[in-house]
Amino acid sequence: MIYVAILGFGVVGSGAAEVLASNRAVIEKNLGKAVTVKRILDLREFPDSPFGHLVTHDFNDILNDPEISVVAEMMGGSHPAYDFTKACLEAGKHVVTSNKEVVARFGAELLEIAAAHGVRYLFEASVGGGIPVIRPMVNDLASNEIERVDGILNGTTNYILTQMIAGATFENALKEAQAKGYAEANPAADVEGLDAARKIVILAALSFGTLLSPDKIHCEGITKLTLADVAVAKKLGCSIKLIGHTERSNGKVLAMVSPRLVPLDNPLSGITDVFNGILVDANMVGKVMFYGAGAGKLPTASAVVADIIDIVAHMESDNVRAPKFTVATDADYADFSAYACRTCVAFENTAGAAEKIAAVFGDVKTVTEGDRIAFISDEMTEKTLTDLIAKTDLTLCSRIRVLG
Amino acid sequence: MIYVAILGFGVVGSGAAEVLASNRAVIEKNLGKAVTVKRILDLREFPDSPFGHLVTHDFNDILNDPEISVVAEMMGGSHPAYDFTKACLEAGKHVVTSNKEVVARFGAELLEIAAAHGVRYLFEASVGGGIPVIRPMVNDLASNEIERVDGILNGTTNYILTQMIAGATFENALKEAQAKGYAEANPAADVEGLDAARKIVILAALSFGTLLSPDKIHCEGITKLTLADVAVAKKLGCSIKLIGHTERSNGKVLAMVSPRLVPLDNPLSGITDVFNGILVDANMVGKVMFYGAGAGKLPTASAVVADIIDIVAHMESDNVRAPKFTVATDADYADFSAYACRTCVAFENTAGAAEKIAAVFGDVKTVTEGDRIAFISDEMTEKTLTDLIAKTDLTLCSRIRVLG
Repeated sequence: MIYVAILGFGVVGSGAAEVLASNRAVIEKNLGKAVTVKRILDLREFPDSPFGHLVTHDFNDILNDPEISVVAEMMGGSHPAYDFTKACLEAGKHVVTSNKEVVARFGAELLEIAAAHGVRYLFEASVGGGIPVIRPMVNDLASNEIERVDGILNGTTNYILTQMIAGATFENALKEAQAKGYAEANPAADVEGLDAARKIVILAALSFGTLLSPDKIHCEGITKLTLADVAVAKKLGCSIKLIGHTERSNGKVLAMVSPRLVPLDNPLSGITDVFNGILVDANMVGKVMFYGAGAGKLPTASAVVADIIDIVAHMESDNVRAPKFTVATDADYADFSAYACRTCVAFENTAGAAEKIAAVFGDVKTVTEGDRIAFISDEMTEKTLTDLIAKTDLTLCSRIRVLG
Repeated sequence: MIYVAILGFGVVGSGAAEVLASNRAVIEKNLGKAVTVKRILDLREFPDSPFGHLVTHDFNDILNDPEISVVAEMMGGSHPAYDFTKACLEAGKHVVTSNKEVVARFGAELLEIAAAHGVRYLFEASVGGGIPVIRPMVNDLASNEIERVDGILNGTTNYILTQMIAGATFENALKEAQAKGYAEANPAADVEGLDAARKIVILAALSFGTLLSPDKIHCEGITKLTLADVAVAKKLGCSIKLIGHTERSNGKVLAMVSPRLVPLDNPLSGITDVFNGILVDANMVGKVMFYGAGAGKLPTASAVVADIIDIVAHMESDNVRAPKFTVATDADYADFSAYACRTCVAFENTAGAAEKIAAVFGDVKTVTEGDRIAFISDEMTEKTLTDLIAKTDLTLCSRIRVLG
């Protein structure tokens, strides 16, 4: 019998208890061992939960219990989640987590502490909710050099953008997302892109070995997107998605989050509602994509429990591969101002606009939509684009990067 | 240093040697050990290959070499691939393979032999080419009961169907697939669905623990599909794909291969060209999809090498989870005649057709396309549908199952 403790009995924490209980038989069959929740740490009481009698308010009840060998941290936030994780690892307990904030900020240090104490720190659920992506990247793509990753990493913003493509305004779509429980009352971390930024730095660390700070990468959310932008994208044969992007750039690492036009032949373009997709480009296998529910109680809990199973399956092995990455130094950050991509530029469609665009941008295909004229530029840096836009002497409506 | 032997130096075999050589550095970094090809078995000589000096024509040179601990079988066909695999496992060598024919026919026995000899038999590359799908199903979905799997499992047929959706006839699309090297001179195994049947029985075995025979499941190819079928599908908001499907049905296992209309909101609908996608439905995580290059030299070789890396990483561990399944008995096969699904039915659009359809099928939405009238039926068995079709007294043009 393997005893597990749960830190944080919120949505994901209670989901993990539920997955372990409902799928007890299949888990025991797969492992040859039963896995049981022994204690749950939360400040609240849960008299109506079947797990209510396991609740403690004292972290030491878990830390000092030698029977508990695996701790699942699903508290959210940096503190005390980070502190409890560190204490558990130092006490020789394995830790699994869905907490992207802790992984994005302290993942390198916690992996090192885990290795030093002969235990494991796994975080499949921190990116893509229930989608298997971290373990496949570490194990299945181990024969590859990963070249870039593009992902729809936040379900809330993808739901809002899906609603906008169907005609809703940003404000109404956000209200609906809140009513359905997808978005928090304070949706800033989602709509401003910070949640996606945390996830893309985790994926960048797995791909390139360097953990950037989510606060130091370029991060734009979706709050400035309008229905006119969506309509222009459609005319250009694209959908609009919030994309986390990372690539290696001259030995450094570039990571960023921003809205992008996604051409319809890219498999990310068709991902709707709260689903997520992570498209990985690797030097031997080419493009592979992982798709599924990017959030939600049971999907995310399913990934947490998969990590617990992985740990239990390899408990007696001293030769388990762990992801390895180090904290980025300033020298690891690629120069964002040198990043070049194609961009969708929309101007007010005033007299002679098409000619002015052609004079500055050359032979680009323009479309008109409402009072706008728009086109997709060649690949260029932000600065070059800004200079060319100024040269047209036209009124800019919007500029949105293109994925490609 | 880990020494590997390659059986069969064709497309995938030479790709595996290339992946091991080109990505030597990243593989050694991930493993902490170098992996080198020591011998290659093939009947031919390869004087121009950088690996030509490793070729032997005598299997015993590999079988009896105690330094070779991992054998990668990429010969194709059942014999002698099966026999060599068995001999290697019995000699205490790990075996990895891309050979779906051997896995679909002998996988249960070979896994048992491997377990009995304390070695592993891995076959990630046998389904979905380079796409990580088998290991994620075994490891990441271990906290779930898998409920069903639907997959685009054959790149050749998906390429042909993509060309047909763009307007090419089946014959021309097939010729183009052959010219591009996607289809064999004898394309029967692809276009008749047998290749997909082998892959869906492997996925069914991983999902439900029972290895059905690919010869005993319902298997239809794409040779009877016409451009009229494609046009009707489009009118109904669907694409047409060759789908391998498996589900648990009253404690038995149903597996089948057939063309299907795929509604555009299903993520499999947008998978074009030679790409594959495997959509797994599991009780906790919901739907997850794995997407990528379903065939090709380097992608498939990338999966073979991922298996080699997995083996080397866990070589000193005696507690590695292996997939487990047994050979199906007759009692394990679900009754195909009881299988119910929605079906797209197209009739000749003769006078009064719409009324006759309404009289028999009730309130279904019909579309007309050329000289056809078509609709999607409710969920029903083949027999019920056949009886209703007869009742309409209309001339049937085609009937194609709908995925849903």
